[in-house]
This record gives sequence, C-alpha cells and structure tokens, in this order.
Amino acid sequence: MKKTLLLAALSLALGACAQSGNGRLTLAEQGSFAVGGTVKTSEGRYDANPAALKGNNNDFWNVYQASTQAGGQTLHGDHAAVFYQIPERARSLPLVFLHGYGGSMRAWQTTPDGREGFQNIFLRKRYPVYLVDQPRRGQAVRSTVGSEIKATPDDQFWFAQFRIGSYPNFNQGVAFPQDQAALQQFFRTITPDTGPTDAAAITGSMGALFDKIGGGILVTHSAGGAFGWLIAGQNPNVKAVVAYEPGNFPFPEGEVPPVMENRFGNIAPMKTDADTFRRLIQIPIVIYFGDFIPDAPDGTQGGDQWYMRMKLAQDWVNTVNKHGGKATLVHLPKVGIKGNTHFPFSDLNNQQVAEHLAGWLKDQGLDK
Amino acid sequence: MKKTLLLAALSLALGACAQSGNGRLTLAEQGSFAVGGTVKTSEGRYDANPAALKGNNNDFWNVYQASTQAGGQTLHGDHAAVFYQIPERARSLPLVFLHGYGGSMRAWQTTPDGREGFQNIFLRKRYPVYLVDQPRRGQAVRSTVGSEIKATPDDQFWFAQFRIGSYPNFNQGVAFPQDQAALQQFFRTITPDTGPTDAAAITGSMGALFDKIGGGILVTHSAGGAFGWLIAGQNPNVKAVVAYEPGNFPFPEGEVPPVMENRFGNIAPMKTDADTFRRLIQIPIVIYFGDFIPDAPDGTQGGDQWYMRMKLAQDWVNTVNKHGGKATLVHLPKVGIKGNTHFPFSDLNNQQVAEHLAGWLKDQGLDK
Repeated sequence: MKKTLLLAALSLALGACAQSGNGRLTLAEQGSFAVGGTVKTSEGRYDANPAALKGNNNDFWNVYQASTQAGGQTLHGDHAAVFYQIPERARSLPLVFLHGYGGSMRAWQTTPDGREGFQNIFLRKRYPVYLVDQPRRGQAVRSTVGSEIKATPDDQFWFAQFRIGSYPNFNQGVAFPQDQAALQQFFRTITPDTGPTDAAAITGSMGALFDKIGGGILVTHSAGGAFGWLIAGQNPNVKAVVAYEPGNFPFPEGEVPPVMENRFGNIAPMKTDADTFRRLIQIPIVIYFGDFIPDAPDGTQGGDQWYMRMKLAQDWVNTVNKHGGKATLVHLPKVGIKGNTHFPFSDLNNQQVAEHLAGWLKDQGLDK
Repeated sequence: MKKTLLLAALSLALGACAQSGNGRLTLAEQGSFAVGGTVKTSEGRYDANPAALKGNNNDFWNVYQASTQAGGQTLHGDHAAVFYQIPERARSLPLVFLHGYGGSMRAWQTTPDGREGFQNIFLRKRYPVYLVDQPRRGQAVRSTVGSEIKATPDDQFWFAQFRIGSYPNFNQGVAFPQDQAALQQFFRTITPDTGPTDAAAITGSMGALFDKIGGGILVTHSAGGAFGWLIAGQNPNVKAVVAYEPGNFPFPEGEVPPVMENRFGNIAPMKTDADTFRRLIQIPIVIYFGDFIPDAPDGTQGGDQWYMRMKLAQDWVNTVNKHGGKATLVHLPKVGIKGNTHFPFSDLNNQQVAEHLAGWLKDQGLDK
C-alpha cells in the first residue's frame, strides 16, 4: 500500500514533468550567427576624422558620405544568417532548412493561418533545427553588390505559380486557408532579393554552415532545391536531402535531358560534374511534390509548370538510381496526402506532411 | 521514515523537473507573423494566362514580366515581421524589442562572440519576448516603394560611431570582444534598408503589434528609440519604454531645444504634439547610455556624437519630469557598469546590463 502510494506520487510528479515535452517546447540551446560571406574593401585610406573632410555641411549623412568616399573601409556581406534551436534529448542529425525563391526562414516558422510550422513540429520530434536566410535575402540582406529593388505588384502571379489557384479562385480542395487574413499573411512572407542571385555565395555559405555544425540533413524548398543538390554534392557533412518541389535537378554529362518547352517558362535541366553527382548517389534523397499537378499539360500556369518539373524530377530519380543512388520521388496525393500547394510544409495538412517525412527519416536510420 | 522516503522521492522527481528551467529554456509557445503594412495595387486587369501575352520568348521571367505588366495585381508590403516566444509560467507583460538603424531582430538574438542575447536572458527571467524586423528591413524587406541598395564599404565609420573605438584600435577597457571572428560577426549583423525610411509604416505596424498582443514593454535601440517615443505616445498598450541610446527625443511645442551643432552631424531635436507628449509623461521610462561618452566634446566621432545625444536625453528627461513624468536616465558607468559601446545589450557584460534592467522592471512593478 505504501509502495503504491510512493509510486503514485512519483508517477504524478514525473507526469507533470513529462508534460513539458508535450505542448511545451524544451530547448537545450538557441542562438543566431552569420556564416560564410565575403569582404569588400574600398580603395583609399580610412580617415577617423570625417569631420575634417566633409566641407561646411554638418548633416550626419554628409559626414557619412565624406567618410566612405575617403575609402579604406570594408563591407562584410554575402553571408547566410542562421537561427538555430536544439531541443532537449536531441537526435544527433539536425535538420537544416533552406527556403525557396522569394522566401526566408519564416517559411518554416509559421503557416498562413498561424499554426506551427516545421520548425516547431520537428523540434517536438527532437530534431535540432537550423533555419537559414540565404545570402542577399531577409536577415542576410547585406550584399557586396549594389542592386535595385523593384516594388512590382505580383501576388496574383505567384498565387497561380504556387498552385493555390487562379486568383481569386482557390483550387478545389486545396489545403490552404481561404480567409483573407491568412492569404495576406502568406503574401507578407514574400521576401525579395537584395542583390543578384549568387550561386557560389549560397552554396559557399551553406557549405560553411555544414562545416561548422558537422553532419546534418538538408531540407530544401523550390529554388533552394537547385542549390541544395550542389551543397550536398560538395560537402560530405550533408547526410541526406529532403527536397520539397525543387525547381531543377543536376544531371551528369551525357545524360542531360533537352530543354523542356513550356508556354509558361522553359526549363533547361542543370548539368553537373562527376564528383558532385558521385556524392549525390551516395546519400538518401527524398523529393516531395504536392497536389494539382496534372498527368499532362493542362494549359494553366501552375499545372503546366509543375507537370514539367515533376516529370524532370522522375527523370532525375531514375538517373540517380540507375547509377546506384537512393533517391525517391513521393507524389503526395499518391500516398493519400491531398490538396497540397507548392508549400506542403505550411499547408493545412502540414502535420500529415511532417509525419510522412518523419517516417522516411526513421526508415533511413536518420533519426538516431 | 516512510513519509521521509516519499518526500525524498517527490523532491528528487520535482528537482529533475525544475532543472529544465535552468540551463534549458522551456517555452509555452513560439511563432512568427507579419503585422501592419499596406497593399499596393497595379493598374490593369489580372490575366491568369500570361503565356498568351508574352510573345515568342518562353523564358520564365519573360512570362513573369508579361503577367505583371498586364497589371491588376497586388503587393503586400511595409509590414513588420515578428518572431515571438512565450516561456512557461510567463510574466504578464512581454518585452517588445525594436532594433536600431542598420539592425534587425538579430541584435537581440546573439552577441558578437555568440553568447546569449537579451532574447534568451529575458526568456530565462520569464518574460515573453517579441522580436521585430521593422518595415523595409530584414525579414520585413518587402517595400511598396522601389529602392536602390548601395553596397558601400562603411564598417569603419560605424565602428567609430558605435564607440567600439577608432578603427583598428579598440577603446581601452571596451566591453567588446577583440578577436577578428567576433568583430566579423558583429559587422555581419548590419542590415541595410530596402526602401526609404517610412516613419508612419514603422509606428503604424508597431501600433498594430501592440493592438494585437495587448499590454507590453517597448525596448528600443538607437534610431528605433526615436520611433519608440511616437509608438508609446500613440498606443496605451505600451506600458513602459526602455530605450538603449535613443538617437532623438520628442519635445512639446515651445520647449524644443535649438539644433545642436556638431562637426560629426548636427541634431535637430524632435517636436511632438500635446497628445503624444501627454501619454509619454504617464508611463515609466528608462534611458540607458553606455561608456566612452565624455563630459564635453572631445573631437572624436563617437565621443562628440554621443556627448550631444546624451545631453539631449538629460534635457528631455528634465522636461518630461517637469511635466509630472516618470523618466530616468541611467549612464551605465555611473552605476558601476563599465566599458559599454552603443550596444550594451550584446556587449561582454550584457548579463550585468540585463540585471540592471530586471531591477528597474521590478522597482516599477512591471514584473508581475
């Protein structure tokens, strides 16, 4: 009886404790850093007394201009910005998230209707998460090359491209919230570039990130996927790649398919070198595509574009596996996960999408 | 004896549980959202079939251009981007952090040498934290107005302006890490604007944030401080203001000091309306300044600039208190906290700086 009481009390106490791993998130560590990047230096000699150079105008920005025109100064740019969180009792391989075109780390932090994104979902599954803003994007906005940002209204173009629907109509059965507040939140995640896209800066900074953290699993989205293949192909610390609707795929010399003709934009498949391809066939790769991708071009922007890119994905998976690789293409509706846009990880069913990925990671032994 | 055993077991179990509030961070919730902002709409009528408009060129960006030129599309911009974390057993008033010029929410997330920033430090003190990227900055990069970003090397100018030293020399006794890796990390936090500074967009989005979250304590840095007074003066949900080295101060009509002449940049004190000022005299305000601020202009950029701004701060505190306000100016070296740059919250002694703030919050009854 007393033993029972003791056990009951213990179980009560430990139960209250364990709860903190449920609704709550328990972190061992979190922080932020910049990684990679270059330094640009201006001609001239730094003068610590710009007041002596500036002429008669005491305006602060006039002094700034006098100082920078005298030169001899540096600009640190083209790095990636990283926010990371490591949960308690963490699994050994972190997930490293790289956004797509027009995206930022916010893509993984939330959903249009404010539910939990993959950041929280995979922290709860005890994976360390590293969220990246690629060079010249978001918090990594500082570019060594000047640029003009255009404020071009284009929400409706992307609404179609991302297979949410044909504005203002939503695709029937789409797993995207259809109230205006959620749609506005979605549009407000769009993050323009602040410099020309520099593939070397992106793959270089991501490589430096994997050098810093050691082994990890690279999770990419869309245009980030095209860089992702190069990052994984150049750095042995990338132990696996998870790619949500990557836009392109690197084929080895002699096996590159012809340009795919498409009224909404052609696609020229990427070509890669033998070393990069050799590494890609050594690691597990899973590629996910969502819903509303027809079996043949259907004359809509979203349908035609993603029909073509998913077809290219299948070609690439076949090529990789023919060379002994371990790549899988998952078309989500085929495994019963329906209604997904170009953003499966933040759609209404993102928990289900996450469960599929968690299962794949387990199957591959990447969840230790 | 059995009772003792029971208590010992309980205490052991609960002890292990409580530990998770120590080195570990236990969160009830975290997420991200956009707030405030405007919508820009292009003339014309949206055409869901840009392929029909684009001419003979199947390039994707050609299709994009045809689509946006046809018009009838929107751009959602000028919002703020927010990342928030709510700890377990949270205090009722959150801290809302607004960065300064050239900054982003990263200012609060880390330090040049990778120690914990105010985000973690105040989460551990059980304050909810809201970190903001103001409109046209960082993850809130999307602007309704086009802009040119210049890639001007200027690190050394800011090194002086921020009172780290006179490049490459560090101020004697400065609480800033002097290794190159830390200095590079610091430079890589610099985040340029992606549109003209729009005070209404900044105060509007911050006002919308306080409307959304209810009462909170606004913590500002530098140029963010100038906006901070307006935000607090326009929104009764701002229950207190903590300002680290604000750059300017809003005086009521008839009490605005003359322009302060300075070789490194004049300062024209802000003027504000009676309503805004009336609200500012009703809330507790603390203003912190760091070290290396001389008692009289000393002919250096950092010394002259901050001598003048701290003098203006004292004038403003006197004005506020003369009208019955509750403002305090803390010059950190005077209370024994030494070596601080323009970034006390990420300097080597930021724990000590945080303890001072925690004490002030407690004294004001803002820690319930």
